Amino acid sequence: MSGYKMHGVYAPIATPFTDALGPIAYDKLEKNMAFWTASDMEGIVVMGSNGEVVMLDFEEKKEIISKVCAMAKGKKYVMAGCGCENTRDTIKLCEHAAKAGSQAALLINPNYYKNAMNDAVNSNFYTTVADNSPIPVVLYNMPGNTGVNLSAAFIAKMAQHKNIIGVKDSGGNIVQIAEILRDVPEDFAVFAGSSSFLLATLVLGGVGGTLALANIFPNECAKIQTLFDAGKLKEAATLQKKLLASNNAVTARWGIAGLKAAMELRGLEGGAPRSPMLPLKDEDRAILKGILDAVTQGA
Amino acid sequence: MSGYKMHGVYAPIATPFTDALGPIAYDKLEKNMAFWTASDMEGIVVMGSNGEVVMLDFEEKKEIISKVCAMAKGKKYVMAGCGCENTRDTIKLCEHAAKAGSQAALLINPNYYKNAMNDAVNSNFYTTVADNSPIPVVLYNMPGNTGVNLSAAFIAKMAQHKNIIGVKDSGGNIVQIAEILRDVPEDFAVFAGSSSFLLATLVLGGVGGTLALANIFPNECAKIQTLFDAGKLKEAATLQKKLLASNNAVTARWGIAGLKAAMELRGLEGGAPRSPMLPLKDEDRAILKGILDAVTQGA
Amino acid sequence: MSGYKMHGVYAPIATPFTDALGPIAYDKLEKNMAFWTASDMEGIVVMGSNGEVVMLDFEEKKEIISKVCAMAKGKKYVMAGCGCENTRDTIKLCEHAAKAGSQAALLINPNYYKNAMNDAVNSNFYTTVADNSPIPVVLYNMPGNTGVNLSAAFIAKMAQHKNIIGVKDSGGNIVQIAEILRDVPEDFAVFAGSSSFLLATLVLGGVGGTLALANIFPNECAKIQTLFDAGKLKEAATLQKKLLASNNAVTARWGIAGLKAAMELRGLEGGAPRSPMLPLKDEDRAILKGILDAVTQGA
Amino acid sequence: MSGYKMHGVYAPIATPFTDALGPIAYDKLEKNMAFWTASDMEGIVVMGSNGEVVMLDFEEKKEIISKVCAMAKGKKYVMAGCGCENTRDTIKLCEHAAKAGSQAALLINPNYYKNAMNDAVNSNFYTTVADNSPIPVVLYNMPGNTGVNLSAAFIAKMAQHKNIIGVKDSGGNIVQIAEILRDVPEDFAVFAGSSSFLLATLVLGGVGGTLALANIFPNECAKIQTLFDAGKLKEAATLQKKLLASNNAVTARWGIAGLKAAMELRGLEGGAPRSPMLPLKDEDRAILKGILDAVTQGA
Repeated sequence: MSGYKMHGVYAPIATPFTDALGPIAYDKLEKNMAFWTASDMEGIVVMGSNGEVVMLDFEEKKEIISKVCAMAKGKKYVMAGCGCENTRDTIKLCEHAAKAGSQAALLINPNYYKNAMNDAVNSNFYTTVADNSPIPVVLYNMPGNTGVNLSAAFIAKMAQHKNIIGVKDSGGNIVQIAEILRDVPEDFAVFAGSSSFLLATLVLGGVGGTLALANIFPNECAKIQTLFDAGKLKEAATLQKKLLASNNAVTARWGIAGLKAAMELRGLEGGAPRSPMLPLKDEDRAILKGILDAVTQGA
Repeated sequence: MSGYKMHGVYAPIATPFTDALGPIAYDKLEKNMAFWTASDMEGIVVMGSNGEVVMLDFEEKKEIISKVCAMAKGKKYVMAGCGCENTRDTIKLCEHAAKAGSQAALLINPNYYKNAMNDAVNSNFYTTVADNSPIPVVLYNMPGNTGVNLSAAFIAKMAQHKNIIGVKDSGGNIVQIAEILRDVPEDFAVFAGSSSFLLATLVLGGVGGTLALANIFPNECAKIQTLFDAGKLKEAATLQKKLLASNNAVTARWGIAGLKAAMELRGLEGGAPRSPMLPLKDEDRAILKGILDAVTQGA
Repeated sequence: MSGYKMHGVYAPIATPFTDALGPIAYDKLEKNMAFWTASDMEGIVVMGSNGEVVMLDFEEKKEIISKVCAMAKGKKYVMAGCGCENTRDTIKLCEHAAKAGSQAALLINPNYYKNAMNDAVNSNFYTTVADNSPIPVVLYNMPGNTGVNLSAAFIAKMAQHKNIIGVKDSGGNIVQIAEILRDVPEDFAVFAGSSSFLLATLVLGGVGGTLALANIFPNECAKIQTLFDAGKLKEAATLQKKLLASNNAVTARWGIAGLKAAMELRGLEGGAPRSPMLPLKDEDRAILKGILDAVTQGA
Repeated sequence: MSGYKMHGVYAPIATPFTDALGPIAYDKLEKNMAFWTASDMEGIVVMGSNGEVVMLDFEEKKEIISKVCAMAKGKKYVMAGCGCENTRDTIKLCEHAAKAGSQAALLINPNYYKNAMNDAVNSNFYTTVADNSPIPVVLYNMPGNTGVNLSAAFIAKMAQHKNIIGVKDSGGNIVQIAEILRDVPEDFAVFAGSSSFLLATLVLGGVGGTLALANIFPNECAKIQTLFDAGKLKEAATLQKKLLASNNAVTARWGIAGLKAAMELRGLEGGAPRSPMLPLKDEDRAILKGILDAVTQGA
């Protein structure tokens, strides 16, 4: 797998449960995986923020990584979310993900003790894990959830480590993304963390994205990149703008509840988020339906 | 234990490790516990933010709760930090803490998915856990770490639940604390979450505090309340101001690294925080020593 | 006036206009002044945030300062809000306020260029003005409007200047207020910037407050301090909590629109805020009436 | 002038003073204007944030607008910053700018009373001014200074007014810019408010930018757009990235002090910002020189 290159669209896949207080529903996951592996995406992220990673205990995380790797084998690349609040558990999870067959480990920065999370601590975290992980690691900047931004200067410094191969930036600060792309080595991959700034990231030199929206619209997301690669910038921009509302619905506006409802509206298995999160209310589900229909019927 | 009443000063105790990547060092913890149980405090919080709760896995949490309860038995009350990101693990930990002998469960609100954490979700969390916990539960508002504030109106609503007996408010917004005290039932306990606003909280009707500084100055912290109860307001204010710098040093300024260094400077067992957090730098340790000396030598 | 000492409750008085696009209505102001000068307050602030200071042009500011000083003469002290975005206009206004008969100049920090407003720039501002002002100056920290907090360390440093005699802290961070009181000279006055933390400020050594609520409840606000001075802490705390909702209504919740509506409900002259601000909506006015009635009928 | 169309690069020009406490230095301004009017830019903004607009009194604003219009006549379009905290002064300034010969009025939203500045108040402001202004008005969203974001939905609603012809968005949220471009009429102009996201804005359908950096590098900024228009996306992206550091130096990093120092390093007239702002320190000026040299020598 030394030839693995981050590129293209990945879906940070949702985790279905039997119910709000119940275990992971692997039968539902399998059905969804059949849809994703048949799509135009290049990969899957298991245990990203959209997979309710912080809602699972350590054994559940290991199990779902193993199962998703098995289901994706030979069809799609798998990046495994292995970031924990401490270094030692993160390394353990990287080792497990490697054995399970993941191509890379996506590492969110520890973030509960926000004040303590300066560059020295973050460097300690990423360097120690990258030194010990059998698979390449990818930085994951998600200030909206973590409350801590990994700066362009910090990312550029980490990019010098030979086992750190890329970054998923979900902050959406396009100037920071430009600065990262200015400062990292050519073969360091920069992924947009949301479909709503995928095109802007590609224009500046990014090579793909890990996109919540790809759970339901994998081909439409992938098409932004195909159009861009083909020099059809105007069509890419039009498609980018067409997807904004649906992306907003499954991220900032309604989060995971919105994503799971959208999956159901698109014929996939969603179900309730794990408690205490609540499913989308009926009135919001009706609005959501209108937003999704505008994407599929508008074209 | 139906007679348990939250009152007085509690220390949210630090968790010593063998080293930055190693297991919990129970021998060190035992030594510290001897100091705390002999102090003027009324209780102990195990697995609070200062105990590096998010750095421990589920089994470690259970074990340390059991051991601390055993060590404190008959000497101090024990409140156990049982809040997890999901409801089901939180209930499991409350059940464990009850069996281990804790008087109450301190519950931080789930906080990774900040946008999703509205009043309905928070109510779902606290109500479901309180309905199922064998021991009373205490709300824990810590917006500095969680990025989500539990409002006075929300806390007042939760205070109607018969198994929710109090709140530890670490936000430090004294107007919010006043609003809480205006709106909750008389027997609902309001604790300051930091020694720096303990006196102001007491003046408005609060009954105690869970104070990082009590790890090293338990008697000094307890004395603020004793002076206040005795009507010696001026002396209480003077002591309150005298402790500000040392409290700042072990919280906002240097966090857990500062707290553990301060414990060592005061003859307790500190050691390194769990990786990726880093121990206090030597130059900061020298400044810290001066700050602590000013407390003990100034009087 | 060398004997002037900041102490007690001041109202940052509202500015009535003929209508939303019209000039200052001095007849209305005169009526209000009769109420305020007959109250238990010790002083008046003209051209504070609640006086819509940023809505007036330079000539209007000079005129209203002159008129208010004339109306208050021999009855109440007058502090004049003289802070402008630049140093030279601020000095000019201080000179005018001195001539008009103000006892002190209240100076908000320049705040439009938030990033530029570091301690060096703030020190340049306050020191230059204090050096040149014929009357003593008072620091005014209002991070909610300015987006810039004057730190305790900065305030303590400024307190060394012989023409800077006090601070009005509207930030409401009670730990910062405690730090200020720990670090400033004994004769440096610390005023609460809101009635909701007046008592907590007094407990720590503060000597008064500049309180929006004093526009409508001057005697009730002054009574918090009288009760505190008399050692009746419990009664003071009860009154403090009783005033919270009405204070919130005329500050955080509805701002100046709420304040002016409250003035009308209390028999004073309010009128519309200057455009583009809008008057309180009818449904909110009804809620406000209930809040105010609870204060006057509850006792 | 009914044919005026917002398009291309504009510089929000700096205002030179004789010294930190002195008047505007029109001789210096004239020298700078000669450079700008000879450049590839399409226009000039007088009295933008970079022109220290809040540092000038009302008469100074009128005078500088008149003089700049006279100097630019027949060479460059002039947009005048006319936004004041209240509606009536804003209308007066629009009337003056029209008489002076400005093509449009750039209107920042009133922002001191942040809590009060909801959509209804903002709509009252922009609609009333646009109804009364003899020249078209342009929305100016600058949340970094104002602390208030004008949302995409609000901007789209304002875009329906026939005398509101465009927006300068300095927030830099590329998703918001995409949403604006999705929702406004075709002839409503969207300008980037900083050179660092000019290219991303153009890709999504924007038509230009008002760029602090254009004070010193007008032709380089204009070239990003020329390259983009010519379909040379890669070259445009490379130039965009090359200008990031110099743009950062004259905006987020050092603000107006940085801009004025950069102007001096580029042979223009800078001088000190108006007090209390301080000139750039010598050591920072040396760093700045290196950053600017990298732009001009790199090509």
